[in-house]
Order: sequence, then structure tokens, then C-alpha cells
Amino acid sequence: MTKQFTLYSHPVGPNGWKVAQVLCELGLEFETIMKDFGDGENGMKTPDFEAINPNGRIPALVDHSNNDLVIWESGAIIHYLVKKYDTAHKLYPESLEEQTLVDTWFFYQMTGFGPYTGQAIWFKVLTSYKNVEAADRYVAEVHRMCKVLSAQLEREGSGWLVLGKCTIADLSFLQWVRFLYRLGIDIEKEYPLMFKWKEAMLARPGVQASTVGEDWRPLP
Amino acid sequence: MTKQFTLYSHPVGPNGWKVAQVLCELGLEFETIMKDFGDGENGMKTPDFEAINPNGRIPALVDHSNNDLVIWESGAIIHYLVKKYDTAHKLYPESLEEQTLVDTWFFYQMTGFGPYTGQAIWFKVLTSYKNVEAADRYVAEVHRMCKVLSAQLEREGSGWLVLGKCTIADLSFLQWVRFLYRLGIDIEKEYPLMFKWKEAMLARPGVQASTVGEDWRPLP
Repeated sequence: MTKQFTLYSHPVGPNGWKVAQVLCELGLEFETIMKDFGDGENGMKTPDFEAINPNGRIPALVDHSNNDLVIWESGAIIHYLVKKYDTAHKLYPESLEEQTLVDTWFFYQMTGFGPYTGQAIWFKVLTSYKNVEAADRYVAEVHRMCKVLSAQLEREGSGWLVLGKCTIADLSFLQWVRFLYRLGIDIEKEYPLMFKWKEAMLARPGVQASTVGEDWRPLP
Repeated sequence: MTKQFTLYSHPVGPNGWKVAQVLCELGLEFETIMKDFGDGENGMKTPDFEAINPNGRIPALVDHSNNDLVIWESGAIIHYLVKKYDTAHKLYPESLEEQTLVDTWFFYQMTGFGPYTGQAIWFKVLTSYKNVEAADRYVAEVHRMCKVLSAQLEREGSGWLVLGKCTIADLSFLQWVRFLYRLGIDIEKEYPLMFKWKEAMLARPGVQASTVGEDWRPLP
């Protein structure tokens, strides 16, 4: 029997895991198809995959129970999932005002923390040349954002970004926070509130279920 | 009499204009307070403004008719505005499936086209040093995304990204597309469908209303 969803993902790409975690938290069943970077046989930059996502990136999600609706961009996917399937408001609240509070931090991850952390890793770790100037720019920006997040966690005092509970805002950051070690950032020492936040997310049964059968354990 | 909204913006920052355009399209009344970059007296990186947006960036919006609700991140602001005030579904459709289609391109602008165009302008135009390697990386990415957008406009054939009409997805790109000239990209020649798309948005009364009294005319 086919699972309800097909998720196109990548073993290392944070944004695919982000969607897997939300699916598992909501108890939704899905099959994962891992794609490769580039234009090789199983690549994201192939006509076959670009028919699914014209931008040639993971994640993409197909909801087989809704006329095989195809969605790409992790933010659009997660908003769809909570609007349609989080009827108990486990990860996304009911009132518009509370949704907006969650969305503020959710968009902050999507437009800031994710892209800038990705650029920092690119210039500091992944490039064969090392562009120190560009790497320094993005690592400094990542530290600035870690301070913004730490201050928010301190203000809230609940261990979560908003509303005193785990929402899609928190979960959207998890994989990116786990990647900070690649920039040489020891969040346990430098950003202890973020470390506790990350550990609390990793301890959740939904998040743990998303890793079954997949090798992401090397991430701290 | 106080206007319904206060918008914190910047004369050049694209994301503040993005919000102004949506407010005007929806016929909502607002006062704009222009902030400066940095930590000077009227700066975004000041304790006063960080009490509004802890990330110290524009745009931020206050809805005085809803208990002075404060929202930051242009994506969260625009979603709030259409969910609460676009009851006629002028810019954001009614069904979840159509909303998700719009959101896919909306998030693409927020997470990809905006950030990467911004980085390209930084490294090619704004830095006192010139980091050619980094500039080339981002300019190439901008061209790649322009091809994705042009292909989508061609597939759709309506002049708009999705649904055959102007939505928040289209409007979210406008200010960023107008900035491409700073990268030496002549969209009229190189990406004619994007040029027509931009011109169609600029011709809209709502978009035109957003510029009244503000000097953004130097942008093409």
C-alpha cells in the first residue's frame, strides 16, 4: 500500500529533514526518496525532477490523498501540512494572532538563519578555494542571529521561542542549529539556551521517529 | 486621527516597500516611519527599535486596530494582512490548495530570490572591497533564478506566476526585480517576460499608490 505522502529529500540537506520532522510530529505516513545534488541520473537538476520542482531543489512533497498535490519550498510545505492536518493545533495555533507570532520566527528561519548559515558553511567549509572574507561575513551574521535567538529564549523562559510550547517555528531551526558545529561554533558553551532548546527538540518522539532508518546521527 | 497601521520601513530596503504595496492594494491606511541602517539615533539597531523587532531590521508593522499587534518579517506581515483583511481574496485565494500554490512562489522569493539578490548586490556593488569570486557566485544564482521565473511565466502564459492573476507571490518579487539593474542585468533584453511582469505590476493603482510622497522613482 502506498503511503499518504512522498517526500523528496537529501541525506544532508536540512530542509528535507525539517519537513520529515513535521510529518512525524503530526503522525503522517510518508515514503522518502533521496535525491542527489547536480544533474546526474538521480539528480535534482534533471528534467524529471524539475517537473516536480522547477527550481530543482529538495524538499518537495506529494500528497497522494489530495489529487497528488505537489508542493515545494519547505515553508510552503510546512504551512500546508499544519493548515490541513494539524487540526489539534499541536504545532501551529488556532488564532490568527498566535499564528502570526509563530510565523514571525518561522520566516526568520526561512529568510535569515537558514540562508546565512548555508552561505557560511559554503564559504568556510565546502568551497575548494577558501574565501575568508566572505566566510567571515556570514559567520559573523550567524553569531548575530544566535544572539537574537538566545535573547528570545531568555525572554520567553519556557525553553521555546513563543507560546510556551514547541511549534513549527522551533522545529524549522533544528537542523540548521545542528549544523553550527561545522562552523566551529560550540553552542553548548557559547549559546547554552540554544543547546538546551536543540536537545529538547531531539528528545521529542516525533523528531526521533523522523530519523529511523536514516543516517543523520553524525550530527550533534 | 491615527492611521490604522504604522509601518517601519527604509527608502531603499525592498522588503518595506513590499509591505506598503500590499497595504495599498488592500486599501488599508498606514503611516510610514523611515528608519536608518545602523545604531545611530534613528537606527534599526537601537534598543528602542529592537523592542519592536528584536532582529533590528525593517519592515515591522503595528496594527493599531488589533491591540497594537507588532509583526516583523515581511513574509509574516503579508500573510497576516491577507488572512485578516483580504476577505475578497484579491491577492490571496480562498482554497488551501490555491493558497499553497501561491505560497510556494512566495517562499521562493523570501528564501531564495530576495536573499541571493541581496548578497549579489552586496558583493558586487555595496562593499568597498570588491569580492569578485563571491559576487560571481551570487550573480550566477540570480540568473539561474531569473530563468526559473521566466520559464514559469512562459508556462502560465497569463503574465502572472500562478492562478492567472496578481497575488502576493508576484508582488513579493517586484522590488527585487527592480533592483536587478544594479547587477548590470537588463531584464528588458535578457528576461522580457519578467520585464512585462514588472511593468504590469507597476501599472497597478495599488502599487502606484504605495509610492506617493516617497522617492523610489530612480528605480526602473
